[in-house]
Amino acid sequence: MLTEHEIELRVRYSETDAMGFLHHSRFFSYFEIGRTELFRAGGGDYRAMEDGGLLLVVVKAECKFRSPARYDDVVTLRTKIVRVGPVKLEHDYELTRDGKLLATGHTVLGRVDREGIVQRIPDEILSSIQEQE
Amino acid sequence: MLTEHEIELRVRYSETDAMGFLHHSRFFSYFEIGRTELFRAGGGDYRAMEDGGLLLVVVKAECKFRSPARYDDVVTLRTKIVRVGPVKLEHDYELTRDGKLLATGHTVLGRVDREGIVQRIPDEILSSIQEQE
Amino acid sequence: MLTEHEIELRVRYSETDAMGFLHHSRFFSYFEIGRTELFRAGGGDYRAMEDGGLLLVVVKAECKFRSPARYDDVVTLRTKIVRVGPVKLEHDYELTRDGKLLATGHTVLGRVDREGIVQRIPDEILSSIQEQE
Amino acid sequence: MLTEHEIELRVRYSETDAMGFLHHSRFFSYFEIGRTELFRAGGGDYRAMEDGGLLLVVVKAECKFRSPARYDDVVTLRTKIVRVGPVKLEHDYELTRDGKLLATGHTVLGRVDREGIVQRIPDEILSSIQEQE
Repeated sequence: MLTEHEIELRVRYSETDAMGFLHHSRFFSYFEIGRTELFRAGGGDYRAMEDGGLLLVVVKAECKFRSPARYDDVVTLRTKIVRVGPVKLEHDYELTRDGKLLATGHTVLGRVDREGIVQRIPDEILSSIQEQE
Repeated sequence: MLTEHEIELRVRYSETDAMGFLHHSRFFSYFEIGRTELFRAGGGDYRAMEDGGLLLVVVKAECKFRSPARYDDVVTLRTKIVRVGPVKLEHDYELTRDGKLLATGHTVLGRVDREGIVQRIPDEILSSIQEQE
Repeated sequence: MLTEHEIELRVRYSETDAMGFLHHSRFFSYFEIGRTELFRAGGGDYRAMEDGGLLLVVVKAECKFRSPARYDDVVTLRTKIVRVGPVKLEHDYELTRDGKLLATGHTVLGRVDREGIVQRIPDEILSSIQEQE
Repeated sequence: MLTEHEIELRVRYSETDAMGFLHHSRFFSYFEIGRTELFRAGGGDYRAMEDGGLLLVVVKAECKFRSPARYDDVVTLRTKIVRVGPVKLEHDYELTRDGKLLATGHTVLGRVDREGIVQRIPDEILSSIQEQE
């Protein structure tokens, strides 16, 4: 399994706030893009997985904000899988601009069904992930 | 100083995602509304404060998601100030629907100038807050 | 059928942009809230309707922006149904602050199925709406 | 002046709604990205222009929605300048996926100062734009 991945994102006008900064809630949407792209880079397809009924929801999310990003800034997001277990996946994130650290983040994902009830990640999926590690 | 406050919010269609749930990043925007309204309920005016050059930025934010919220749900947000210091303010949050806990959160705010550099909260403001406690 | 309705909304920090204004795309989300609340005020329940398989999608949307709204502004949204037909519903909107016109809007909604294909609004629903007029 | 430009965008999870579609208000944010990138492709820098005090605001926006976009879809946005005048700029937009038309849009931008009051676009800027045409 590919466990680390880097993408660039350009801050959109609609993502800024009246302070002129990328709104803090948007960092969590960036992290989500990082997860999708890390999964894709490893050959996965999150949309197909979800169409197949495996929903991954964010169980916990945190972010430490060091320095703001502004409209039109190009920022680099590094996403890392740091733990894989039967009911959860954990990722770390680093957002930088020209090598300067803007934020670090951490999320825990869990599997739920369409009613939002937590479910164990199926063994066959889990073992296929672990085999790839 | 008023240190605790409760508001109701109705989940908007534009805040949901393809899973049918309130998108996880939106909880942080709800927390921000809770802070604004707690401050207003205590006689403060965050917008006037910001116009006066005192910017409070989120330095750290975390949320534990227990159960999803859906379009048109009416949710109750309880916001509490849990620590006031010379360079930061800390809040706790609880989001519920009909008494059921949906999420808990915690944020740390710091003061910055318009360049995004951390600044000490001025003594006169700090002491006025502490006198009110 | 109730054909006109007014609500108040307070501009959220996360809805502003670097110019300090309510971002122009947000006006369309406000209009959507206006439609939901107009429908609710008339005894309807958009969420139940959608759970029942009747999806209404925006087929056309337009907005003329006259004056900006800022963080923490309380704005008044007036929503009016201006046309009801077998495949579409049309609404007009007026957004004001203290009587000053900020924006006017117009939307056309059509009915689609879950694949996004346009469908005729069922006669029984249409006639019940028209009976109420 | 470069008057036409094409970019690709991938629909983000946070941009979808409970119907599973890219939320209709997001199309207007996509159009904004199209304008920024068209301007950049022609050698302009919208952020620098705004830092210099020239704010362009959306005076009118409209969109016709033909077919929905879903999470992870790669869509193509074609942005065209269709009119340049002393107080406004007009753009047309076409959003497609694999050649299929999803939406068409049109916006009118006007110049405002920091108070939101409409201003004439300065002759030197206007003539430089027109010279490039």
